[in-house]
Amino acid sequence: MSSDRASIRELLQQIKGEGRSTLRPDEARVLCEAYGIPVPREGIARTAAELSRVAADVGFPAVMKIVSADILHKTEAGGVVVGVKNPAEASQAFEEIMRNARAYKGDAKIDGVLIQQMLTGGLEVIVGALSDPSFGKVVAFGLGGVLVEVLKDVTFRLAPATEQDAMAMLESIAAAQILRGVRGGAAVDRDALARIIVAVSRLVTDFPEIRELDLNPVFAAPDGATAADVRVLLDFTPPPQRYRPSQQEILQAMNRIMRPNAVAVIGASPEEGKIGNSVMKNLINGGYQGQIYPIHPKAAEILGKQVYKSVTEVPGPIDVAVFAIPAPLVAGALRECGAKKIPGAVLIPSGFAETGNVELQDEIVRVGRECNVRLMGPNIYGFYYTPKNLCATFCTPYDVKGQAALSSQSGGVGMAIVGFSRTTKMGVSAIVGLGNKADLDEDDLLTFFEQDPHTQVIAMHVEDLKDGRSFAEVASRVSRKKPVIVLKAGRTAMGARAARSHTAALAGNDRIYDDVLRQCGVVRAMALKDMLELARCLPILPTPKGENIVIITGAGGSGVLLSDACVDNGLKLMAMPSDLDAAFRKFIPPFGAAGNPVDITGGEPPTTYRNTIALGLEDGRINALVLGYWHTIITPPMVFAKLTAEVVEEFRHKDIDKPVVASLVGDVEVEQACDYLFDHGIPAFPYTTEQPLIVLGAKYRWARAAGLLAN
Amino acid sequence: MSSDRASIRELLQQIKGEGRSTLRPDEARVLCEAYGIPVPREGIARTAAELSRVAADVGFPAVMKIVSADILHKTEAGGVVVGVKNPAEASQAFEEIMRNARAYKGDAKIDGVLIQQMLTGGLEVIVGALSDPSFGKVVAFGLGGVLVEVLKDVTFRLAPATEQDAMAMLESIAAAQILRGVRGGAAVDRDALARIIVAVSRLVTDFPEIRELDLNPVFAAPDGATAADVRVLLDFTPPPQRYRPSQQEILQAMNRIMRPNAVAVIGASPEEGKIGNSVMKNLINGGYQGQIYPIHPKAAEILGKQVYKSVTEVPGPIDVAVFAIPAPLVAGALRECGAKKIPGAVLIPSGFAETGNVELQDEIVRVGRECNVRLMGPNIYGFYYTPKNLCATFCTPYDVKGQAALSSQSGGVGMAIVGFSRTTKMGVSAIVGLGNKADLDEDDLLTFFEQDPHTQVIAMHVEDLKDGRSFAEVASRVSRKKPVIVLKAGRTAMGARAARSHTAALAGNDRIYDDVLRQCGVVRAMALKDMLELARCLPILPTPKGENIVIITGAGGSGVLLSDACVDNGLKLMAMPSDLDAAFRKFIPPFGAAGNPVDITGGEPPTTYRNTIALGLEDGRINALVLGYWHTIITPPMVFAKLTAEVVEEFRHKDIDKPVVASLVGDVEVEQACDYLFDHGIPAFPYTTEQPLIVLGAKYRWARAAGLLAN
Repeated sequence: MSSDRASIRELLQQIKGEGRSTLRPDEARVLCEAYGIPVPREGIARTAAELSRVAADVGFPAVMKIVSADILHKTEAGGVVVGVKNPAEASQAFEEIMRNARAYKGDAKIDGVLIQQMLTGGLEVIVGALSDPSFGKVVAFGLGGVLVEVLKDVTFRLAPATEQDAMAMLESIAAAQILRGVRGGAAVDRDALARIIVAVSRLVTDFPEIRELDLNPVFAAPDGATAADVRVLLDFTPPPQRYRPSQQEILQAMNRIMRPNAVAVIGASPEEGKIGNSVMKNLINGGYQGQIYPIHPKAAEILGKQVYKSVTEVPGPIDVAVFAIPAPLVAGALRECGAKKIPGAVLIPSGFAETGNVELQDEIVRVGRECNVRLMGPNIYGFYYTPKNLCATFCTPYDVKGQAALSSQSGGVGMAIVGFSRTTKMGVSAIVGLGNKADLDEDDLLTFFEQDPHTQVIAMHVEDLKDGRSFAEVASRVSRKKPVIVLKAGRTAMGARAARSHTAALAGNDRIYDDVLRQCGVVRAMALKDMLELARCLPILPTPKGENIVIITGAGGSGVLLSDACVDNGLKLMAMPSDLDAAFRKFIPPFGAAGNPVDITGGEPPTTYRNTIALGLEDGRINALVLGYWHTIITPPMVFAKLTAEVVEEFRHKDIDKPVVASLVGDVEVEQACDYLFDHGIPAFPYTTEQPLIVLGAKYRWARAAGLLAN
Repeated sequence: MSSDRASIRELLQQIKGEGRSTLRPDEARVLCEAYGIPVPREGIARTAAELSRVAADVGFPAVMKIVSADILHKTEAGGVVVGVKNPAEASQAFEEIMRNARAYKGDAKIDGVLIQQMLTGGLEVIVGALSDPSFGKVVAFGLGGVLVEVLKDVTFRLAPATEQDAMAMLESIAAAQILRGVRGGAAVDRDALARIIVAVSRLVTDFPEIRELDLNPVFAAPDGATAADVRVLLDFTPPPQRYRPSQQEILQAMNRIMRPNAVAVIGASPEEGKIGNSVMKNLINGGYQGQIYPIHPKAAEILGKQVYKSVTEVPGPIDVAVFAIPAPLVAGALRECGAKKIPGAVLIPSGFAETGNVELQDEIVRVGRECNVRLMGPNIYGFYYTPKNLCATFCTPYDVKGQAALSSQSGGVGMAIVGFSRTTKMGVSAIVGLGNKADLDEDDLLTFFEQDPHTQVIAMHVEDLKDGRSFAEVASRVSRKKPVIVLKAGRTAMGARAARSHTAALAGNDRIYDDVLRQCGVVRAMALKDMLELARCLPILPTPKGENIVIITGAGGSGVLLSDACVDNGLKLMAMPSDLDAAFRKFIPPFGAAGNPVDITGGEPPTTYRNTIALGLEDGRINALVLGYWHTIITPPMVFAKLTAEVVEEFRHKDIDKPVVASLVGDVEVEQACDYLFDHGIPAFPYTTEQPLIVLGAKYRWARAAGLLAN
């Protein structure tokens, strides 16, 4: 292949030299052949004598075309014959084409007749590749035909794609069943299609100047697949390179920034209501135990802390500087941070790209890079890191410690995180504002949270990924260890428009985002509230070991709705084995419903809940439980909550820890019961049958992608 | 048509007599022609002389076939020629067919040669009809071909369908764009297709014995559509008839049952914890002002009320009897209710069909009918009707009066309604348990709520519609006056399975439910929590007058998410006219974002919110406002809530009342602000950008279906 590569390199250089941006069919054919992408067989017969050999190589049916630089309009010249079925027809066609060509243009220089394999039958599919502004080279697969064009049934993966990625793509389209053959149609050669997908993804990776590539259609047959038409668009402009420190450098900086031993507040203020005052108060009142250095040109002391005129005057080392000064002063202060070797600046000030002042933002990025200071923001609320009691923000302090790390690109969403966390007592390790993401972004945060022992789940509100490729690489690695949840704003055309005016960022094609995030094992939340609930619940939910889910419900009506929600969230109700069915039946009234859901009926005492839940935990074939509680006088909400927590706890002591989620329907007392259950490791929700399954479904999606599930 | 109908009737009778359940092609052709469904033209030429006339009538291309009762295998006999292109070819084919036929079977009696129009090109679609167990005759439309079969892209409507229904069906499939022509393909003749859909729907309505009918494929061309193949399945078993009183009779009974002046409690009990005791307490403690008659064989007084041995002993009239006695005693007590002329019985007891005791349920239905007593339940919690302070239930009393009427088929869901209503202070007119729906069901309730002045929205949890046809008729009428919300449980295959085991009811094809509910103007809720939120919010939201929605947001990030949610809920962001854009710009900082969303930016004082909201209400081109609030110190949550409520109120006084919904992101104080806004007629939600748009989207769906929107 290396010699092939060299010759392709040479070919592309030559095309560049000619100032072209597209390939001729014969050139495109060279690329395909070099990467093992089957194209129709062909050959040129210069004489009638050569014809039989060439035709035998190509096979029938065939298309025959005049080859002459002097004849541009081949069909008009009578120089094309299609559907040639056998050697006799080929001879006849050869003579006819030659005769027509001479009649058309007597002095034409004729090189011969091209005989090309005519592709018929099979299923028409499309394999392509494009350069996404965020993710770079991406490979695409879809069915051909006008209907699919209308339904947009196409799937994407980052290039290069593995064989496994390619096989997953064949399953990812809505009409996947077609490939397996329906209504007596034959199944296509999946391996052959996968090989083409992989080859295309490698080709565009090896030659970044290939901006777009389309194999359309590819004829997929039961025994192979052939690209009938190849289109290649080139772009020799080198893509902008983003500054990417090494993982070690990122960690060195991030560990100091996020868990600092000393914080400077540049623009600290003694004046109530000022941002620089709020930041000081939050640091102090939040209980931060490290050094706090207020920086102010005139004041001597702020909130009992000694003031310095500049960070350079501070005696000890500083790990992070929180900026609360106007935008035009930021660059100057950054240089001082550089002189002091502070690894990071938290840039609260606005007045940069988000207000149209792109130059000022470019300048601070340049200064940051020169001085080796990483920038968080600008245009952010700051960040929280609860293991250090650190509230480096002008918002209110937040102190419910836990295992969820959250970030938001928008300040509003950040405030929603704080409010939701506080009211639901969501345990949080960190909340980080990323704002304009002039420098630090999601991949830096992921790299930090990956090794942060206090973080078990990471949830991110994202408007755009400035370097989706790098995000994907890091997220793929991190998501195998800890769930990564992403709320992608600007999903829809309207949403994307608002994103443009808000962040001046180009919002990506949502289908690409969707596929690539899934490819990286990221759990995508479709709503803000869902992202928050997942961040709250995923860390307390153990990882399931298999796909078998059983619903145990006191309300038959909830059972139906919970079953609906199972399907909606890609979960599988276990087909109940008869012995297990019999075992459940021992505990429930004779008119309780068979199978799954296990309907224990509404009038049952606490023991029925207890016995059936215990059986569900004990039986090794069951991997997760969904509980549907119905408020009755016989088993009041708190009685149910306590017995459930107790049984689950008992089994945890026996090292049996399965995911259990609950839906509680009843009067307002169920709210308190839900809180109690949550505090005991059981995500539970009142007045909804959907939310518990959204949570369980997300845990499963993560576990499947991380390869933690057997089947 | 009436003579046509008579002859079809005769034909079907004849087929019934022959014991057949399918039609022969020539018989199916008769039905199609009678209903104006185009089928391929055809004619028989007995002689070569007749050929040219017949062929001219049929046109080319054509198929020609031997007509002879003695030749069964026409192709084998060389009796079929396809692709006949012109008169000359037709003559040749005629001779060939005749010659072959005679050679094949010398003594065959030959009736001539059939010349049939050969359909080619055009788009293949499917028009069909089926008999749904709940909805009866239903007409279907979809695109033909294997791909659509895989994607299940098909739509249904109740038969008979109007022209308007049929045109809507053409828009309802996912691949609707195909019909308009894509990639240079011609648009099909929509009117011709609609005529076929209407004709099929009338045919199966006129002849109920047609169980299934398939026109597959129909070739849809730019100038007409023709059914190439027709399949008809018959079923002469008459469908079971359901007892349906007249609307007047329903109302007479329902108005007494739901707003009684006197209530009897059969099985009233002095004993704490008994259902008959809880019902008595709830009636008394709930504040019901009518007569309460406890019925008990022995006690003299219960909770201060005089006890009677039987309803027949009660001196005055009784409007409703609440049953709290064991199932086997119900039939006897019902007879006494009949004797006392009580119009309705509320059957709390379980132990009927839901436990497998179908006979006992059939018996009480029979008794109820004989005695002219309507039955609510059995197997229910009872019902609430707040305008009368009536809590005819064994659950806790509920007293927040309002305009939402809710019903549930399941007791668990009923308890969720009570709990949610109480905690959110949802104003309720009624909550009704329907349980096994042995008699009273959703259509009876709809008929009552339609004319109940205290009810402005109706929300129903439905597991199955025993008489979907009747429900559809009533819902179509009621939904033009008041929003009707339905949560259909058992949507998915898994859910449907649980429904079967729970209610022994056959769950319908969900796509049929979905399409028919939409056809009836019903707003479908896809989640329990959504149904509850819609019931809470729809009554307080004014009806929009047009589609133009403007988002005003303090948080750009919320703006993006709110825009996403707009699209998700079928709402249209207004394209901002430049004069209006300029008018908004006067109030917001120069770096606020242009267009829609109007991004006023985060640091703005209350006046900016006030001015922009006022402008949004004032400008006649804007029909609804979506507010995105971001918690800041400059405009705290309650300040925002109060100013917003105030501005909206001001405009209401000027008779400008537009729907306004709000998303509040911030710290926990936003929760109180949301409550305040809701109390002032503005649905507002904390920590979510989706919920306000789900609510607004539902109001729009209702208003569009009810014909209340201009465009």
